[in-house]
Amino acid sequence: MPMKWISVLLLLQLSGHFSPGSCGKVLVWPTEYSHWINMKTILDALVQRGHEVTVLTSSASILVDPNKPSAIQFEIFPTSLTKDDFEDILMRLTSKWTYMPKYTFWTYFSLIQDNILEYFDCIQKLCKDAVLNKNLMRKLQESRFDVVLADPSGPCGELLAELLKIPFVYSLRFSFGYTIEKYSGGLPFPPSYVPIVLSELSDQMTFMERVKNMMYVLYFDFWFQAFSEKWDQLYSEALGRPTTLFELMRKAEIWFIRTYWDFEFPRPLLPHFQFVGGLHCKPAKPLPKEMEEFVQSSGENGIVVFSLSMVVTNMTEERANVIASALAQVPQKVIWRYDSKIPDTLGPNTQLYKWIPQNDLLGHPKTKAFITHGGANGIYEAIYHGIPMVGLPMFADQPDNIAHMKTKGAAVRLDFNTISSTDLLNALKTVINDPLYKENAMKLSRIHHDQPVKPLDRTVFWIEFVMRHKGAKHLRPAALDLTWVQYHSLDVIGFLLACVATATFVITKCVLFCCRKFLKTGKKKKRE
Amino acid sequence: MPMKWISVLLLLQLSGHFSPGSCGKVLVWPTEYSHWINMKTILDALVQRGHEVTVLTSSASILVDPNKPSAIQFEIFPTSLTKDDFEDILMRLTSKWTYMPKYTFWTYFSLIQDNILEYFDCIQKLCKDAVLNKNLMRKLQESRFDVVLADPSGPCGELLAELLKIPFVYSLRFSFGYTIEKYSGGLPFPPSYVPIVLSELSDQMTFMERVKNMMYVLYFDFWFQAFSEKWDQLYSEALGRPTTLFELMRKAEIWFIRTYWDFEFPRPLLPHFQFVGGLHCKPAKPLPKEMEEFVQSSGENGIVVFSLSMVVTNMTEERANVIASALAQVPQKVIWRYDSKIPDTLGPNTQLYKWIPQNDLLGHPKTKAFITHGGANGIYEAIYHGIPMVGLPMFADQPDNIAHMKTKGAAVRLDFNTISSTDLLNALKTVINDPLYKENAMKLSRIHHDQPVKPLDRTVFWIEFVMRHKGAKHLRPAALDLTWVQYHSLDVIGFLLACVATATFVITKCVLFCCRKFLKTGKKKKRE
Repeated sequence: MPMKWISVLLLLQLSGHFSPGSCGKVLVWPTEYSHWINMKTILDALVQRGHEVTVLTSSASILVDPNKPSAIQFEIFPTSLTKDDFEDILMRLTSKWTYMPKYTFWTYFSLIQDNILEYFDCIQKLCKDAVLNKNLMRKLQESRFDVVLADPSGPCGELLAELLKIPFVYSLRFSFGYTIEKYSGGLPFPPSYVPIVLSELSDQMTFMERVKNMMYVLYFDFWFQAFSEKWDQLYSEALGRPTTLFELMRKAEIWFIRTYWDFEFPRPLLPHFQFVGGLHCKPAKPLPKEMEEFVQSSGENGIVVFSLSMVVTNMTEERANVIASALAQVPQKVIWRYDSKIPDTLGPNTQLYKWIPQNDLLGHPKTKAFITHGGANGIYEAIYHGIPMVGLPMFADQPDNIAHMKTKGAAVRLDFNTISSTDLLNALKTVINDPLYKENAMKLSRIHHDQPVKPLDRTVFWIEFVMRHKGAKHLRPAALDLTWVQYHSLDVIGFLLACVATATFVITKCVLFCCRKFLKTGKKKKRE
Repeated sequence: MPMKWISVLLLLQLSGHFSPGSCGKVLVWPTEYSHWINMKTILDALVQRGHEVTVLTSSASILVDPNKPSAIQFEIFPTSLTKDDFEDILMRLTSKWTYMPKYTFWTYFSLIQDNILEYFDCIQKLCKDAVLNKNLMRKLQESRFDVVLADPSGPCGELLAELLKIPFVYSLRFSFGYTIEKYSGGLPFPPSYVPIVLSELSDQMTFMERVKNMMYVLYFDFWFQAFSEKWDQLYSEALGRPTTLFELMRKAEIWFIRTYWDFEFPRPLLPHFQFVGGLHCKPAKPLPKEMEEFVQSSGENGIVVFSLSMVVTNMTEERANVIASALAQVPQKVIWRYDSKIPDTLGPNTQLYKWIPQNDLLGHPKTKAFITHGGANGIYEAIYHGIPMVGLPMFADQPDNIAHMKTKGAAVRLDFNTISSTDLLNALKTVINDPLYKENAMKLSRIHHDQPVKPLDRTVFWIEFVMRHKGAKHLRPAALDLTWVQYHSLDVIGFLLACVATATFVITKCVLFCCRKFLKTGKKKKRE
């Protein structure tokens, strides 16, 4: 009975399922680095479908490369921040997070939270520079956009949409503690089986793990309430009426979450949430000639692809040597994206590249394993091509991503700061030689490919839906109009308990009254 | 920017998105009447895709028509029940439910629950006759089916699948109080904004409505626990080990719910739930010649289509006259599906038919309104073609369905047992002459048509997915392995409260001890 699932996907792709329609106008409020890489895939698809895409970004933005020709338009607004300021803040945050000894989560999160808040202050400054820039806002008003596409991990998109009176949609990997998804999306996260992001837990938790998960929930709930206050002020000022960040975020028409059930543990969703993980993945293209020759020279042993986050550039010599020495001992050829001093222990089987075509390498039939920092984009490329992983997670959701892959049996996890050469060597041997890892990676790959509609097509469909219907109000849960007390039915439970208590009290009083009356009559009769 | 959404759907349909693949073997445990009509659409689609479909049903089944040629195979097992017994039980239930004065829900549900339990006893007898029939079970074992498709509103499919050791999927409109979806599907139903089915509430509830909704939840929770006990016994006996109905039901790979967000109020779902309402809907075909002539004779006024449940046949003469008299007064022509004594008040504008091509009539450009009992299938045909409704709900989910359409502004609701001719006349005039009703019906129609994949294709895709992958375990929420206490984190909350209480107690004791010590020392010093 087995069917060729790939044919379904190919047919869908070839069918013109989303044939070019009339042109819409999309305004984009993006976030930097890997967020941008993912979002750009959506923008390219929108452009290809004939839509006009304008990315609103500041003069301090790192993602804008004016030398690269692109059909995407960029509206660049001035800010007193410089590219260097912005890059410096990001680098300090990611480096501190990466190279910090991993005490407990509470310790290290409290140590980096100042850097996180500094980053958000910076985003807030950019937002202020955009929305209070009258000329810019007039220009945007006149452009008559149909929809705003924003990444809520750097807020402002919702405020722009409110000012321009147009609907908006979100693309999001995660917010700290899923607080934004919960309080602005209305998504339920039962802490009994939904591990909070950054907890590195799975959906099968022991009692103490569930206690830990609950504490994460409480911690982030308080943390985020405090965080949002600053934004409430700016948003109220910009709109000229009291409002809050969460209130505006609640108006999002569709939430595109950058995961799917190949990666995520099954959990409740809502009709206006679309899980579109891996939308940037695509079949491998041929490698550059010199690289292909090196890959082919690996023979039956195949190759290992190794790439850490492009944000982390300052790897110490000691770490580089530990890694290079492990790589030198595997029978595979190794392709390592690395842009620093050449390690002394580098083996002849390892080639260093400043940049690698990662997706094409992962899709190469010779590739046996992927050593990765565990960014969601890279993980998805490995899932797409069914490649087992060795994870050296560094910051943000990376430890969590690797924990997911480990639970699903497709990765081994190591600690970048403390591993020895032997650890890395053993991990590599395990994922390459134990067939279970390949099997599990292939299983995830099959799940990823076997969807009724490809994630990118689904994303484009719903963005176009919002443009066609000027929103997607029919998907909006009424939960978003309830207070916390109402949502959890605490007022109703209180009322019903009060009714039961009153009824019990009245009945008891009546019974006691009757008993006393009866006893009195009895005594009187006895006396008579 | 508006796009022709219909083109997306047509292209998808024409594209061969689901091209015929290798053949799978599907075993079906169906439910009668409208449930069967809906399920048959899925079975026909599966047959068309090259799969072998076998419907397992008893000799008492009403749905099997041996005179109708069909590519669907029927495996009919003997039972001591007769068609008449079965029909009689169903008729008694539906008639009592329909013609009962509608006191409060509690009164009438308690009056009909004996009939409901009688119906389930009957289903249980059929189930027993199937699973304890050794020859039949051996035959089914040897047939090596790939998947069971069942309607859990008549249990047994899950037991068959367990005995045959194959995965199963569900097609379901609703269970009483959503108890099956909640306790076997793991679906959250926050009573604060998800109105319980049969409550006739919307998602925007006042405080007292939320109280009412909560009481429905509690009522059905207790009701269903009691109901399931009988089944637990049968299931344990058949499997030779202690088990429960809910335990087996929890193994469902995919749940196809026969509604969508055109009909339903947005509420939480889970990855293994697919909302496929209206999968049976299709474009209208031309009408029979005589009927088309009658329709065309209506001129600009157009026609009204009128059809009540095929289960309710014994309409009183008095009710028929009230209805006919109202219909006689509208300027439209009326097509009425009616199979009883011709009412005296029947107008010349009204034609009676024993059977009507309902979908083709609703899709006719002359159709202005639909008078319906509010069955989910009929409602979906009206949504599909964008026709406003007058609802005369009778039993089961019909009052709820009409309540949904009323809230969405596409229907007026009347009480079948008490309406006067004027009520019906006014209602008809309202939905035909107030353009808002047509507008809202068209809005629902647009929502229905504008999906990335048509509901029937989605259903077939996921059934084939389960056959291809021998299940869909990656979609199964871990919630299904938790107890009620664990799911609601009551143990964790208890533990954390105990920790806080202990810490408070110890700290208070310490402070008091220190205070006393300090005071004693102070007094001593004073004395000295």
